[in-house]
Amino acid sequence: MTFVTVADSDRAKQTRATLDRLHAMVADDLIAVNRVILDRMQSPVTLIPQLAGHIIAAGGKRVRPMLTLICSRLCGYGGRRHLELAAAVEFIHTATLLHDDVVDESDLRRGSATANAVWGNKPSVLVGDFLFSRAFQLMVGDGSLKVLGILAEASAVIAQGEVLQLITANNTETNEQQYLEVITAKTAKLFAAACRLGAVVTDRPAREEQALESFGHNLGISFQLVDDALDYSAREADLGKRVGDDFRDGKITLPVVLAIRRGNEDERRFWRRTLEDHEQEDGDLDQAIRLLEKHGTLDDTIERARHYRAVARDALAIFDDGEPKSALLDLLDFCIDRAH
Amino acid sequence: MTFVTVADSDRAKQTRATLDRLHAMVADDLIAVNRVILDRMQSPVTLIPQLAGHIIAAGGKRVRPMLTLICSRLCGYGGRRHLELAAAVEFIHTATLLHDDVVDESDLRRGSATANAVWGNKPSVLVGDFLFSRAFQLMVGDGSLKVLGILAEASAVIAQGEVLQLITANNTETNEQQYLEVITAKTAKLFAAACRLGAVVTDRPAREEQALESFGHNLGISFQLVDDALDYSAREADLGKRVGDDFRDGKITLPVVLAIRRGNEDERRFWRRTLEDHEQEDGDLDQAIRLLEKHGTLDDTIERARHYRAVARDALAIFDDGEPKSALLDLLDFCIDRAH
Repeated sequence: MTFVTVADSDRAKQTRATLDRLHAMVADDLIAVNRVILDRMQSPVTLIPQLAGHIIAAGGKRVRPMLTLICSRLCGYGGRRHLELAAAVEFIHTATLLHDDVVDESDLRRGSATANAVWGNKPSVLVGDFLFSRAFQLMVGDGSLKVLGILAEASAVIAQGEVLQLITANNTETNEQQYLEVITAKTAKLFAAACRLGAVVTDRPAREEQALESFGHNLGISFQLVDDALDYSAREADLGKRVGDDFRDGKITLPVVLAIRRGNEDERRFWRRTLEDHEQEDGDLDQAIRLLEKHGTLDDTIERARHYRAVARDALAIFDDGEPKSALLDLLDFCIDRAH
Repeated sequence: MTFVTVADSDRAKQTRATLDRLHAMVADDLIAVNRVILDRMQSPVTLIPQLAGHIIAAGGKRVRPMLTLICSRLCGYGGRRHLELAAAVEFIHTATLLHDDVVDESDLRRGSATANAVWGNKPSVLVGDFLFSRAFQLMVGDGSLKVLGILAEASAVIAQGEVLQLITANNTETNEQQYLEVITAKTAKLFAAACRLGAVVTDRPAREEQALESFGHNLGISFQLVDDALDYSAREADLGKRVGDDFRDGKITLPVVLAIRRGNEDERRFWRRTLEDHEQEDGDLDQAIRLLEKHGTLDDTIERARHYRAVARDALAIFDDGEPKSALLDLLDFCIDRAH
């Protein structure tokens, strides 16, 4: 990997510590959210809490519910509604993960066997549906049609984005714009909604809602781009998945999009064979990484992520400085710095 | 088949005609509902309307939305809300079917190839998620938290029932009570919710809501039991699926539950081999049908369905006579009479 500099590496250490402080700030709220999650995933059909517990307990970073918690604080919220809504957001995310793993035929997520690998595809589809319904029950309990509208729309957009990704998944003609549309739908939309809820529960004016939505959107894009780069570079233990999963799945992510467009005809033939035709041999992943490094596309993907980080940072400018804002900015930095 | 009597057969003819009149009664509303369905399944990702259109247009009887339409009329509703809610109910049903077909690995539904058979499992999972989200968007548009609560709960119960069915699917120890729990969740719950909505949109008192819920629940059970009997007896063209699908899938439905419990040890070995161990040979389906007929369990399943029909009929007693009530009673009769 070429994109780790010494200065970045030092900063990463510092940032990781900062994320710990962020955790401490929302620790009590997160405990309450986890209690809601555990409580609402119960069912007399014991396979449901078993399977849901497997994925929910699998060391998820709870980034999305934390966004709802911190954005609520940023808006000065003093109530309890954000706890159940944060749980609803995590349920939607978890349902999506379960269905994703079925669609991607993944067998490892965050370093653990996926639910579909342990129990098969069928319960993963159905427990995903259950968690999705539970998310809506939590929102109904909250009682805000506005919240319901925001998360129902986010859910529809996510599903639409997943279908789009499925279609374009191994099309080597995919360009950067098309790729951004996919990750906007499948990642950034729920980040945006999770953040926006903070302003909604606090009845803040539309411009604050929009600012938080923009922050979440740009954070989400940045987060996904770094994930895409990490898929070709991280150590398995760090990432909780094997290096090269996207490559083996024939997924066209930004590092690849850029390499294909910058490459020569021989290289494009390589990408078509390995990703479109799914004919992969020993050494192909190494060759793919060499091509990404040759064209500097892992570095450039991180550069793109920095751009979205800058936009996200500016979106927060209208809010007063203080602990919650610093926590959000730390999280934003963490998203990039985990690449190191 | 032994359970068709001449008198029943005559009545069936008459009932089918009556269902046509019922269709005529809600024809305009159904056109409006279909327009909402077509409109709301659109997406710039064209695979979504293609795949959704395939299953939605595949000759579904629209039983569930019709229930919402007629029950609204029964309660004297004069507005337009029931149209979008009927569409939401059909979307939830369709999403469930898509995921069902993936879980069951079915390749034929209502006489057409299933979406998963045509496009594969992956888009079926994701388009199901999309339609489910769209259902909630329709409800949010309607604006009633009560409606949202009813359908969110129904969705959670359906998913739970599907998981339960998956676990007990080929357990030959399943008893009638356990089987009823499964079909209550996976079929009757949405029937009950679809009916109850008629009283909810009209702001009718709780006893009318409860009466319609009870009607829908018992109609749903009756409907499912007849389906289970038809799976071993109907001609393919009538049912739109192959005779013996449940048998081939190793599903333990009521005709089988009863036959296992009434059978001797040799017979139980047969059921365990074919349904639990999934070791099926040529002639096994014929043998299964012979055993069901020997113990009269197809007839008895229809008898059980008649019981639930009677309960459903009584549930409607508190409503005034008239066209809508007659239409609901016709539908109830049709559910049983299609067995002939």
